[in-house]
Amino acid sequence: MNYKKLDKSTVLDYISDVKSVMNYFGQDELQADEIGDGNLNYVYKITSLQDPKKALILKQAVPYLRCVGEEFPLGRERMNYEIRALQKFYAIFPSFVPKVHHANEDMSLVIMEYLDSHIIMRKGLLNKVEYKNFSEQMSTFMAATLFYTSSLHLSSSDKRALIDRFNSNVELCKLSEDLVFSFAFMEHETNINTKDDECAKKLFLDVEFKEKILELKYKFMTQNDALLHGDLHTGSIMINDSETCVIDPEFAFVGPFGFDIGVLLANLVSSYVYHSVVTKDDAYKEWLLLSIKEFLSKFQAKFLNFWSESASSALLVDGYLDNATIELYKVKFIKEIFRDSVGFAACELSRRVYGVAGVEEIRGIEDVNLRAEAEGIVLKIAREFLMSYKNIQNCDEILEIVKDAR
Amino acid sequence: MNYKKLDKSTVLDYISDVKSVMNYFGQDELQADEIGDGNLNYVYKITSLQDPKKALILKQAVPYLRCVGEEFPLGRERMNYEIRALQKFYAIFPSFVPKVHHANEDMSLVIMEYLDSHIIMRKGLLNKVEYKNFSEQMSTFMAATLFYTSSLHLSSSDKRALIDRFNSNVELCKLSEDLVFSFAFMEHETNINTKDDECAKKLFLDVEFKEKILELKYKFMTQNDALLHGDLHTGSIMINDSETCVIDPEFAFVGPFGFDIGVLLANLVSSYVYHSVVTKDDAYKEWLLLSIKEFLSKFQAKFLNFWSESASSALLVDGYLDNATIELYKVKFIKEIFRDSVGFAACELSRRVYGVAGVEEIRGIEDVNLRAEAEGIVLKIAREFLMSYKNIQNCDEILEIVKDAR
Repeated sequence: MNYKKLDKSTVLDYISDVKSVMNYFGQDELQADEIGDGNLNYVYKITSLQDPKKALILKQAVPYLRCVGEEFPLGRERMNYEIRALQKFYAIFPSFVPKVHHANEDMSLVIMEYLDSHIIMRKGLLNKVEYKNFSEQMSTFMAATLFYTSSLHLSSSDKRALIDRFNSNVELCKLSEDLVFSFAFMEHETNINTKDDECAKKLFLDVEFKEKILELKYKFMTQNDALLHGDLHTGSIMINDSETCVIDPEFAFVGPFGFDIGVLLANLVSSYVYHSVVTKDDAYKEWLLLSIKEFLSKFQAKFLNFWSESASSALLVDGYLDNATIELYKVKFIKEIFRDSVGFAACELSRRVYGVAGVEEIRGIEDVNLRAEAEGIVLKIAREFLMSYKNIQNCDEILEIVKDAR
Repeated sequence: MNYKKLDKSTVLDYISDVKSVMNYFGQDELQADEIGDGNLNYVYKITSLQDPKKALILKQAVPYLRCVGEEFPLGRERMNYEIRALQKFYAIFPSFVPKVHHANEDMSLVIMEYLDSHIIMRKGLLNKVEYKNFSEQMSTFMAATLFYTSSLHLSSSDKRALIDRFNSNVELCKLSEDLVFSFAFMEHETNINTKDDECAKKLFLDVEFKEKILELKYKFMTQNDALLHGDLHTGSIMINDSETCVIDPEFAFVGPFGFDIGVLLANLVSSYVYHSVVTKDDAYKEWLLLSIKEFLSKFQAKFLNFWSESASSALLVDGYLDNATIELYKVKFIKEIFRDSVGFAACELSRRVYGVAGVEEIRGIEDVNLRAEAEGIVLKIAREFLMSYKNIQNCDEILEIVKDAR
């Protein structure tokens, strides 16, 4: 099938030929509405007129950055990786990603479950919503997807086949290399205006800091531990009281274990900083700290648990080591993942301050002085994370750094 | 073209259709002779009857391990990676690999330069030949091929394209994972008989040692720094007084910087151990140590030199860091490569003692007592390398370990 960009009128024609979707809706009449902020893609909600609760999402990539226009080309192949990652995550643990009803790589298009009762987690955190199941659910999602796509579980050939499926996600990996690890730490046209900003100047001259960012960039580029979401901030999580759902994995690739965990950790921390500076709600801040701690410690426990349930793998041949030594090895291994996560969290926290893609809870603070205060705290936490990540021992040390920064 | 195994009579038919080869030989009459020990592949020498100095090598893979037979299947796709690596290495630095005159992946076949005046380096070392150009030439080959296939030079997309070309060399990567990093350190049917060997028992119970082997195995499996030869022992080097030529890169894949260097270092050390125990030729031992030192230090200097000549890369965006900090970063970086090389050398040294693939200079020692002595020294050096590689500072420390072991 040749690629054709759909619009509101042709969307329904397209799905009339898709059996799985027609089966879902039965004989109902359908309506298509364009929804979403659509930075990159076109998103339509397909709804049954007879039963408005029956609805699906159709998402199609265009070969450019939608919010800028055709003069900013961006390969629509990114949708291939989103589709493949959604399907892979669903196969590992169906509860935490939207179900894919139909996917078509030629058309750069996916039709999936509509999450009607969920909101973007970043918004919920801004509004001080306490998500009781978040740490339990996200720790399961991340432990499962990271463990079961790694060489700790897969055979050597299955791991290489997985790499094959994601290795060519070149453009979006390059975007991360540039935006997460480079441009936000130097004078660059993509940054927000930093010309007269003394803090920006100080950061751009902090060579000790930047050398460590470079170490982590190299790890991001060359360490193929497991399948990552690749952009797992709180805007990529749809959530409600009972469910947590990960969306938009178009940056997916096989990369270092610590990256997704670090990105999520960073975004939880930036929410904490927002509440420190703006709402000053101590109870909510406590809940955020507790959630960070629970998320990180449950992740580690579950990852180790999946490992203990798993048979021999590419890495650990049956009979190679006695069980006691294997257990010690695993504990060391998970500690290294944890440390790298703290390093990557530092990258994510700090790149959001001057880089092109800010986060609402910091860049969105309207009062200039409060925003500057929040940025200062974020950078202070990032620096402490980065300077100490290789030796950090446990979650409490992280919480201390976060609480003490002001 | 469909795959067909050639034999002595059909080889000449095949090349009569290959223009580049026919151009090389002109109107000469040709003769085909099967040569080589042929563990894995069939190798023919094609010679001009009019001018016997005009000759090429034709090498064809069969879909099984030739020395065992069809009951041991091994995908003939391994030849694809050999062809691709030879061509890539040649493109980077033509002096150090045989020139490919014709390659055909469908036929799992390559026709290349015949090296008439070279011998296998391992044999030369056994016979105490001092190769004056070895360290100079091999350090150039390895610095160039490793640097120019890494993210320190390539763009992000070129690096991923390179990974694409080698990622599916599954079977041979798996062989290395098993044979270099696992089976040789445990009771396993592929090992030489270790039942009553006290030293083997001791090694197999040395959990401290084996945990470190596991760390390096994980690095081998997941760290994609640069294109490796993958099996660069002294039997993969053809050499004479003036030239050094690397052959047989069928294990090629994108892996950790230190692996090839470590394998070569290990094989030079095992030659040193042979001469310590068997010939006791102090002058030759000195030459070996000097060669090791020169090879390692020249490699580091040349790698840094290529780096300083290279423009910005996937890793180092122009303007990100000041030059002084970049220089410090590079020095740290090359030290990590050096340290990993020592770690991988330990794996290679020790896996050759009880593993299925021994090296002639150790396993070939006929006197049982001398062989046991040599094996003991090899294992001692390997253990010291492995226990100290993360902190080793310079080449002299390595030479001290090698000299002091007895």
